[in-house]
Amino acid sequence: MNFKIFIIGDKLEKFFIEAIKEYEKRLSRYCKIQLINVKNEAELLKKLPDKSYKIQLIISGENISSEALAEKLNNFAVNSTPDIAIVIGESNFSCDEQLSLCSMEMSLGLQATVIFEQIYRAYRIINKEPYHK
Amino acid sequence: MNFKIFIIGDKLEKFFIEAIKEYEKRLSRYCKIQLINVKNEAELLKKLPDKSYKIQLIISGENISSEALAEKLNNFAVNSTPDIAIVIGESNFSCDEQLSLCSMEMSLGLQATVIFEQIYRAYRIINKEPYHK
Repeated sequence: MNFKIFIIGDKLEKFFIEAIKEYEKRLSRYCKIQLINVKNEAELLKKLPDKSYKIQLIISGENISSEALAEKLNNFAVNSTPDIAIVIGESNFSCDEQLSLCSMEMSLGLQATVIFEQIYRAYRIINKEPYHK
Repeated sequence: MNFKIFIIGDKLEKFFIEAIKEYEKRLSRYCKIQLINVKNEAELLKKLPDKSYKIQLIISGENISSEALAEKLNNFAVNSTPDIAIVIGESNFSCDEQLSLCSMEMSLGLQATVIFEQIYRAYRIINKEPYHK
């Protein structure tokens, strides 16, 4: 699986970049994952891979549990949907699905950290591995 | 207002401690807030201030929005409830209220980061100040 996590907006704060780097390292045994910071929707549309399954993280999206996310990622693997793009930040681009992380508004960096942690958690669930910390 | 955020469990990872330190600094103009790492429930019960209003963060708790949290904190101030204890981690201690950050399971460090960010966001909302990043 190949994840591209797009953030529309300013560069993230240092401590969130550090957290994301750590999850990127932990995820390297399960998948390819990359954080891509874009300035605006125009740059997003230019960089968004055509063939990817596109998920927008938005507060009004469907609220799912960690187990449901793990099942979703597992289904992508089973159904040969290897390229997933996840977009954080305001945009009206045409996506396949809208998910919500939380009923609270969160900063872009925090949202990115949460989605990296959740993808890592999903792989631990899929592989029936314990999740520490 | 005086917040004590209790984490029951292992020491947090470095990048989450860095994130929390930053929010602690930003919050210093609005309130006193302190992160307290305890090893287990026994240590929690020893350190939990008797007179504080006790909130447990738990996935089955009430899901609230950032605006609702801001209103809640504002009501505490209005009703002279200055001491708030927020507990993260498994425990059957007797609390006044259970809140849920998210329908997803999150690591202790991530939960702590989210609650610090949300308290900061709440003060920005209460004071009608813009929230950047």
